[in-house]
Amino acid sequence: MEARCRWPGWQDKLCSAEEASALIEDGMTVGMSGFTRAGEAKEVPRALAERAALDPFSITLMTGASLGNDLDKLLTDANVLSRRMPFQVDATLRRAINDGRVMFIDQHLSETVELLRNRQLAELDVAVVEACAITEEGGIVPTTSVGNSASYAILADKVIIELNLDSPAEMEGLHDIYIPQMRPTRPPIPVVAPDSRIGTPYIPIDPEKIAAIVVTRGKDSPSTVLPPDADTRHIADHLIRFFSDEVSAGRLAPSLLPLQAGIGTMANAVMSGLAEGPFEHLTMYSEVLQDSTFDLLDAGKLDFASGCSITLSEACGERVWSNLDAYRDRLILRPQELSNHPGIVRRLGIIAVNTALEVDIYGNVNSTHVGGTRMMNGIGGSGDFARNAQLSVFVTKSVAKGGDLSSVVPFVSHVDHTEHDVDVLVTEHGLADLRGLAPRERAERVIEQCADPLYRPALRRYFEEACRRGGHTPHCLEQALSWHIAVERDGHMRSLQEEGVEAVGA
Amino acid sequence: MEARCRWPGWQDKLCSAEEASALIEDGMTVGMSGFTRAGEAKEVPRALAERAALDPFSITLMTGASLGNDLDKLLTDANVLSRRMPFQVDATLRRAINDGRVMFIDQHLSETVELLRNRQLAELDVAVVEACAITEEGGIVPTTSVGNSASYAILADKVIIELNLDSPAEMEGLHDIYIPQMRPTRPPIPVVAPDSRIGTPYIPIDPEKIAAIVVTRGKDSPSTVLPPDADTRHIADHLIRFFSDEVSAGRLAPSLLPLQAGIGTMANAVMSGLAEGPFEHLTMYSEVLQDSTFDLLDAGKLDFASGCSITLSEACGERVWSNLDAYRDRLILRPQELSNHPGIVRRLGIIAVNTALEVDIYGNVNSTHVGGTRMMNGIGGSGDFARNAQLSVFVTKSVAKGGDLSSVVPFVSHVDHTEHDVDVLVTEHGLADLRGLAPRERAERVIEQCADPLYRPALRRYFEEACRRGGHTPHCLEQALSWHIAVERDGHMRSLQEEGVEAVGA
Repeated sequence: MEARCRWPGWQDKLCSAEEASALIEDGMTVGMSGFTRAGEAKEVPRALAERAALDPFSITLMTGASLGNDLDKLLTDANVLSRRMPFQVDATLRRAINDGRVMFIDQHLSETVELLRNRQLAELDVAVVEACAITEEGGIVPTTSVGNSASYAILADKVIIELNLDSPAEMEGLHDIYIPQMRPTRPPIPVVAPDSRIGTPYIPIDPEKIAAIVVTRGKDSPSTVLPPDADTRHIADHLIRFFSDEVSAGRLAPSLLPLQAGIGTMANAVMSGLAEGPFEHLTMYSEVLQDSTFDLLDAGKLDFASGCSITLSEACGERVWSNLDAYRDRLILRPQELSNHPGIVRRLGIIAVNTALEVDIYGNVNSTHVGGTRMMNGIGGSGDFARNAQLSVFVTKSVAKGGDLSSVVPFVSHVDHTEHDVDVLVTEHGLADLRGLAPRERAERVIEQCADPLYRPALRRYFEEACRRGGHTPHCLEQALSWHIAVERDGHMRSLQEEGVEAVGA
Repeated sequence: MEARCRWPGWQDKLCSAEEASALIEDGMTVGMSGFTRAGEAKEVPRALAERAALDPFSITLMTGASLGNDLDKLLTDANVLSRRMPFQVDATLRRAINDGRVMFIDQHLSETVELLRNRQLAELDVAVVEACAITEEGGIVPTTSVGNSASYAILADKVIIELNLDSPAEMEGLHDIYIPQMRPTRPPIPVVAPDSRIGTPYIPIDPEKIAAIVVTRGKDSPSTVLPPDADTRHIADHLIRFFSDEVSAGRLAPSLLPLQAGIGTMANAVMSGLAEGPFEHLTMYSEVLQDSTFDLLDAGKLDFASGCSITLSEACGERVWSNLDAYRDRLILRPQELSNHPGIVRRLGIIAVNTALEVDIYGNVNSTHVGGTRMMNGIGGSGDFARNAQLSVFVTKSVAKGGDLSSVVPFVSHVDHTEHDVDVLVTEHGLADLRGLAPRERAERVIEQCADPLYRPALRRYFEEACRRGGHTPHCLEQALSWHIAVERDGHMRSLQEEGVEAVGA
């Protein structure tokens, strides 16, 4: 305990999760650690849910991104959440959001603490942060994610620390905490490469604000990423061939550019595929470091990885956490404001690989809304990266639900990324390089390279009729959403395969 | 002439516009100066159009933004343009784009030269740049715009300089030319305030590349900005009251934050309105400096203005160009890559005021596409600023065409700016502060504060029915585009006023 908690005042602050949770009152705004199921405070939220079952109350909850250990489910079931931001992945919370019971504010993940710092969001009453250690001065050493924890702890009136004795003590030194100064007199943030260290290895806070220390045990939930399948392997192959061609054309070096990969099975598969590619001395400047990061480090392909959290499968976790010294010099965890910072992404010239839910023939991307209305997870960091990357790639399988749905549609039912921010689209069928093309040119490539062959005739018919009517971005408005309307009516888009687009719609 | 052209080699390169235009051959990619009708090369494009009338050929033309002096019309009529990027405002060119005769690539204005530098666009054969002087070493001193001229001149194989003897020689010293280094080893761009000077007052090029110098006369086309009317005054009043309230709440200083205003009547009116507000020591970090900039400078309200072009009305131009010394210390013109740079916009924490064509009830903005298909001008810099601003404001009149069209619709027919990038919406009816709100909450504010009262009942009915169906962002897909379909069918949306939304659509 002395090694974990070197701050002399700790004994006065030690308490149970239940006692600590009493600091959080009805109507408060609370910031918690946790990013993509990594490094969340585990016991205080559980205690909140238990308390609310007896004595109802609700709060605004901000996190880094998603929580693990079913915490969003527990908090939703206990009706603790009146507002939630900036990201989530929980099925129960998702239902509450889509029913309008929880007000969800879906944000670019780099922006939440910027808004908080400028007092454009409600001020933080309490921060709850998981730590693997507390320094002599009361500084907090985070665990597997930094996320928004640093700014939450610095900006909140009171700080509750969950000191997790099961978190690897060896994590100390991995983090790099830097808080941008207030605007408009902010100097440049000095990150110039993925391995730039510019801050402190702990979150510096006024120890007077430490209101409670709760000793905990317990692990992060393992990643839910699935192993690559035939389709994701094809996607990876298309992209690796494209990168190789870019190297041959002299547009990329063999070390490519710093890589970012969105969370999830698809982007993880693409990154893993790079282990077999002809590239060397790769670097990552990403958000979540997933299994693929460590596969690439182990393969000697990746020199350095910067992120704001580490989310691993059970097997990969065992390999990494028991052997952290082997990776220590090649990893940094930063606040998500920096891992996702538009200015740094632009400065480094990142290659961003993110996953689309659906794309339209002009290259607009929907990452979040099923059928244009129902929130899946949130935009996450995809906007931070896609807008500012040197190469912005979106990947998706060409169909979903066994072919019932085409992921390539005439008109996306919701736009998260406009065609301006999408350079390359990839499905298992092929890759559409959309750089420097006008919308009509983009449409031809997207239909012919990316759409499933069964849906291509209907897409071609839509596009031809739209071009006949004219416009820079031709559309047939009365048919534009007909593919989604077919899903509402029939549960699938198969009628587009058979009857053609003319038969559906208004 | 000696004062204007101090480069010793000039006499060998002197030629007519016709001779210079012969350097531009069929199929070439050409970069020209010109941004919002300011500082465009004037004679070489005219000569190109004349030549093409006799001997057809076509090129890819890149500029900063729009050209004046009807050049885009002349070039379109002569079929010189096969591809055009990244912005335009010409009625004839617009028609050709919407007919699919000219491939138009609509880009974030900060990105064009970044793409060019990385060879993600076709390489530049020739640059044509208007200059007010040529330095001893062959450096180009631009005129009323920098736009993309610096990178075009540096990256092109050959450079044609139009030395405009009618441009004020006193402009020399106003420009600040800085070119970001290649990625991924780019140091931070050192702009830390609107008045940061970080480069040279001329475009440094290898004088070996100067292929022709054409001596010209002639002025920029005057701005087409209209004086404020009752509606734009109301919009300005709402916004000024909002800014004042933000100052009272301690969220903004009385000097606000560096201001950006989109091109056009509406944003210009808002800026002019600030002259009557309680603000002092304002600064601008914007794209185009319009009449309002000089109104604010003259009123002693504005301390400094940074932009990439100056576009003025005839009257304001007379005041400014004959009296440049009075403004010299308070102005900088930069490359548009820097005036619009996402990282600098984020660093300075800009207040961005841009104009919407239409907005939807959730705060998504269409800036470009009439009826979802027909290009108006282009996204311009609005995305560069709106995404990264501390406060992103969009303004629009609540109706267009005398009330035939509502600018507030259930579902925008094209998305340029997602709800994530829109903090505040203002029409003549009121201001909707959308910060920190979930979509359902945003919709109520947008409908009640911003929509025209005649269209509010139909919007409320749509929203209520959508909420009954559910979703994070509730929609009735079969009605979502019905307002635009009504316009295609009837030429107006008045049926929505009378019959209600249920009667239109599928």
